[in-house]
Amino acid sequence: MKGLFVTFEGIEGSGKSTQMKMLAAKLEELGKPSLLTREPGGPPIAESIRALLLDPGNKEMLRETELLLYSASRAQHTGQWILPALREGKIVLCDRYYDSTIAYQGAAREQNLDFIAVLTRFSTFNTVPDITFLFDLPVEEGFARIGHRQLDRLEQEDRSFHERVRQQYLLLAKEQPGRFVVLDATLSPMELHKLIINQVLTHRSLK
Amino acid sequence: MKGLFVTFEGIEGSGKSTQMKMLAAKLEELGKPSLLTREPGGPPIAESIRALLLDPGNKEMLRETELLLYSASRAQHTGQWILPALREGKIVLCDRYYDSTIAYQGAAREQNLDFIAVLTRFSTFNTVPDITFLFDLPVEEGFARIGHRQLDRLEQEDRSFHERVRQQYLLLAKEQPGRFVVLDATLSPMELHKLIINQVLTHRSLK
Repeated sequence: MKGLFVTFEGIEGSGKSTQMKMLAAKLEELGKPSLLTREPGGPPIAESIRALLLDPGNKEMLRETELLLYSASRAQHTGQWILPALREGKIVLCDRYYDSTIAYQGAAREQNLDFIAVLTRFSTFNTVPDITFLFDLPVEEGFARIGHRQLDRLEQEDRSFHERVRQQYLLLAKEQPGRFVVLDATLSPMELHKLIINQVLTHRSLK
Repeated sequence: MKGLFVTFEGIEGSGKSTQMKMLAAKLEELGKPSLLTREPGGPPIAESIRALLLDPGNKEMLRETELLLYSASRAQHTGQWILPALREGKIVLCDRYYDSTIAYQGAAREQNLDFIAVLTRFSTFNTVPDITFLFDLPVEEGFARIGHRQLDRLEQEDRSFHERVRQQYLLLAKEQPGRFVVLDATLSPMELHKLIINQVLTHRSLK
């Protein structure tokens, strides 16, 4: 039995987390077990790496270090949690995966995309999501939504950084239409939920 | 002014650290400033990564995660400390560098050496040491020397692991004779010190 690997991508404030929880609850209701997880993070070693990455005190972190730490976290998460869950036939719902690295560390921080591709194949054990939901939202709108809470190290970047992230995401979606589902994140939570649940339940892997 | 980058490699218990301290003291006496550092580690972010790598509690760490964490630590160390020190004309003495990764994560843990080469160029910003001292020692002898202290996560590996490390080091030295100086680590500390100081002071970069 092969599971289903679903990833959720988008800029901060795009509503990914809310939709993931709604989807997980619906899947549970339908008797389909899912693993709800996030990157960077997952198993304890990956969570320790996450803590280093998001610590606002680590201002001296070089972009190269950041890229390699995300990749280290991903290797641990994929090998220890994601692949075993998929082998058991579970639906894995992951908040951010390697598309985030292409968008943030690649496009926004201007690092070599060919190297990132090689690194990604290694850190994911060549795993590719079955469905990637891209929550697309104008950057200003995302900022307005997260305005009320403490910003972490990456969220503190300026608006043009987040604009490059958004454009890279849209480019990836255009290049890989079979995997990406672009969602208008300004829709209501219930409208988004219906679109998502429909895509997941009709995926060929679940038939 | 270009500095001099000297790395020290060898299995645990080979006496690297003692020799590095003796060399640094001698260089200070001669009025030549040096930076004494080690991998994994160096600046605070790299030391935090070191703590994850060497924690005996992190038994679930995958070899892929380990390789990427060493590389992340190296990127931070090289970019934040080593390259600036070399630009200032300093002599940098580093306990382990990328040859350790080739020997331990590559040969001993059987990971792809071509991928490690790509990763190394990235994490070192294409930096290559001017001199690499290889402290060569039979594995049994190294174990006997460190027998009295607590073993960290890597030191707990079995003897065949450390034998693969030793053989890979010797292969690297054979392939790159212009950079490597193979030392018989069973010599007395003072004999080793004389060999080392002679190599360092006669290097073309210091003339």
